[in-house]
Amino acid sequence: MTTLPLQPTPRTSLTRSRHRALDDREALHACLREALIGHLGVTVGEGDGAHPVVLPVAVALDESGPDEGGTLYVHGSVAAGWLASAVGRTVCLTVTHLDGLVLARSGFHHSMNYRSAVVIGALRRVEDEDERLRALDLVVDHLVPGRAATLRPMSRKELAATVVLALPLAEASLKVRDGGPVDDDEDVAAGAWAGHLPLRTIAGDVVPDAHSADLPVPVEVGVRADSLR
Amino acid sequence: MTTLPLQPTPRTSLTRSRHRALDDREALHACLREALIGHLGVTVGEGDGAHPVVLPVAVALDESGPDEGGTLYVHGSVAAGWLASAVGRTVCLTVTHLDGLVLARSGFHHSMNYRSAVVIGALRRVEDEDERLRALDLVVDHLVPGRAATLRPMSRKELAATVVLALPLAEASLKVRDGGPVDDDEDVAAGAWAGHLPLRTIAGDVVPDAHSADLPVPVEVGVRADSLR
Repeated sequence: MTTLPLQPTPRTSLTRSRHRALDDREALHACLREALIGHLGVTVGEGDGAHPVVLPVAVALDESGPDEGGTLYVHGSVAAGWLASAVGRTVCLTVTHLDGLVLARSGFHHSMNYRSAVVIGALRRVEDEDERLRALDLVVDHLVPGRAATLRPMSRKELAATVVLALPLAEASLKVRDGGPVDDDEDVAAGAWAGHLPLRTIAGDVVPDAHSADLPVPVEVGVRADSLR
Repeated sequence: MTTLPLQPTPRTSLTRSRHRALDDREALHACLREALIGHLGVTVGEGDGAHPVVLPVAVALDESGPDEGGTLYVHGSVAAGWLASAVGRTVCLTVTHLDGLVLARSGFHHSMNYRSAVVIGALRRVEDEDERLRALDLVVDHLVPGRAATLRPMSRKELAATVVLALPLAEASLKVRDGGPVDDDEDVAAGAWAGHLPLRTIAGDVVPDAHSADLPVPVEVGVRADSLR
């Protein structure tokens, strides 16, 4: 497992609230492992018409991936122009876990608890067939660990329709806020209530589709649901 | 209330999965109302060094705001260079609710259920003091409806330290996926299980801070916590 410390460059160094930055690659990987989606920002257009587009993407982490610091895989349809046009250009992929609402004694000190990983780098289009297959299995196993091995192999047609992109984790930052509000002394002295409201994402009951009502829920799906309770 | 239909431009027209686009401004507002955070993509740097940066931001919707289609407010510190440099430039703000994991009979048809709003526009720096105060109250009330009225007013120092930005909702798209997997007929015929796992964000117990242990939890905080159960 790659356990390089994060090496912030000027692009990923936090300019504010530096005490909330974690220089810890394992903490970065943990944040990305837990993520179901990320928000990928790419530049579309040229010259004065260029602007960022931010879209949600499924992510899958390969901690021992071929890139420095580990590899984050995203994928999409070959017909998705915004993804294709991003290859080789610098992109920003951000994962945020919202952990709570921070309810201070002033509006100014209201905040949120969160863990947010920001990765900046150039997207590499994965061409090697073994790496493509492994990345696509990782994407499925990222949703439900162990599920990829229970599925039929990808067809040639499906593989031809899918683009797999790799983002190196070499240039990344992690920012975390947790705990209660940080109020001004005079607001605390005035005696008003303050606190925080923890938030988390949970799973409901597994919903079998119309053809699966009489089949047992696969073990790995049940385990995954239980992990989100 | 503004109830203009969404008017997709080439920048916000969906190029794929058009059946998942909703041309409905009320549905867009509902998606944004429910959002606690958005991911704001801005371009930083110039020329060949320009690249997108995507960071999580608190959002607050003013459905009857001064901009065409309604206004989405974000705010930050005047010391946050990336926000300041974004004023007047085209940005992309994306809100995504992750509603479930879609577990198909093939890796290819695995998916997620989600509602995702993408807004593209130029950020307007709010200078009018009344609009600034109203926007900052909206940000607090967006976290906990009714809370702004229970707090002391912002101080002049706090106001001077805060930048308020408005994003018009004129140019936006909304994409929704829900329900179970859509499998190939031959995979359904092969008889494997498929289904989906609903996800949602819930609140835990309210945590009073060290100075509030003996105080009653404010009514609006309890109501908000109950709304996330």
